[in-house]
Amino acid sequence: MANEEVKLFRTWSSPFGLRIVWALKLKGIEYETVLEDLSNKSHLLLQYNPIHKKIPVLLHNGKPIVESLVILEYIDNTWEQIPILPQDPYERARARFLAKFGDEKLLSSIWSVFVKQGKEQEEAIGSAWENLKILEEELKGKKFFGGDTIGFVDIALGWTVNLIGILEEIIELKIVDEEKFPLLCAWMQDFADVSIIKDNWPPHDKMIAKFLAIREPYLAGSK
Amino acid sequence: MANEEVKLFRTWSSPFGLRIVWALKLKGIEYETVLEDLSNKSHLLLQYNPIHKKIPVLLHNGKPIVESLVILEYIDNTWEQIPILPQDPYERARARFLAKFGDEKLLSSIWSVFVKQGKEQEEAIGSAWENLKILEEELKGKKFFGGDTIGFVDIALGWTVNLIGILEEIIELKIVDEEKFPLLCAWMQDFADVSIIKDNWPPHDKMIAKFLAIREPYLAGSK
Repeated sequence: MANEEVKLFRTWSSPFGLRIVWALKLKGIEYETVLEDLSNKSHLLLQYNPIHKKIPVLLHNGKPIVESLVILEYIDNTWEQIPILPQDPYERARARFLAKFGDEKLLSSIWSVFVKQGKEQEEAIGSAWENLKILEEELKGKKFFGGDTIGFVDIALGWTVNLIGILEEIIELKIVDEEKFPLLCAWMQDFADVSIIKDNWPPHDKMIAKFLAIREPYLAGSK
Repeated sequence: MANEEVKLFRTWSSPFGLRIVWALKLKGIEYETVLEDLSNKSHLLLQYNPIHKKIPVLLHNGKPIVESLVILEYIDNTWEQIPILPQDPYERARARFLAKFGDEKLLSSIWSVFVKQGKEQEEAIGSAWENLKILEEELKGKKFFGGDTIGFVDIALGWTVNLIGILEEIIELKIVDEEKFPLLCAWMQDFADVSIIKDNWPPHDKMIAKFLAIREPYLAGSK
């Protein structure tokens, strides 16, 4: 395996790119990082992901794999040490369902809380809470979504830990509070404390600046 | 396995439900069909899929699995005869990518051709063609996406065969023509000829009536 080429194209901040960092680190795979600037995408990124033109891209021995959840499955199929997906088919299906739910329902509801104001924001919080409740339920009797250690769902939902705190700080509003979501709050803390997570967090101040800038046109009503 | 309970909740027309029919038939799994009316969803459907409230739902020994692509993976993990996903991790990732691409990009571009008119429709055809070209490329040197026999991608993209012909007939416009997409046209024919596909096709006239009714509010400008 010494001659393997493993390259990860990502940005410094994208939680989708971080998923791949976490999975590779968890499995102890050495890789090279190519940091992309999305306002000026490299020709390699466009070559490797011509359809979506997005990060992350994992390049393994010259072959590109795209879409972060697909990459996670690829990593788990290719390097079998420390499996991230459960073995049981039903648990496995549940894990895939939750990851998809996070990307398709939860993320947009959290985002709405961030960019809306007034009554619209209140409604958005309502649906974000409804979605977060599903995660709270899922954590009953477990430290991580994967059980005693982090797995596919923890990695797929890690963006919540990465992002919700930043967004809360900017809008000065608590979305995930301890009283309403005690298990989720405990999970967020436990997840952030895992060394491979802690060591690969994007810089806090840079994140705040980035998301303040993203929110501006929404506040000005121009988006 | 004789005492297994396998129930499929679907509608008579949904291509997402048909995916599951095809996969179960391919693997020779006996199951019971529960036909849902989406304007009056059964309490069981709401109980088994409380988050999305959608079909298909596969119930296996009392456990519900939802989201059609997740169900396909579950079926492949649970009943290993006649595998539908490729064994090679890269081919497997490619298959997952193409299925996702079909649902997230191709489907909406085909749908736009169906519901738009005039210049907007012309633009929609342009992007539908761009997406279809990706499938045409993928079929080079292969009869099916899965190779010599149908597999995960064929099942996931089967909706194109099911739907595009119906939509073309209604709008009186060819989207997938033989000159531009010779391999895709050949695949559509070969796929439709496979016995488990042929035997489970929704009735043509009922499909035409359904999609004529769906298109009406768009034509009237009220949608």
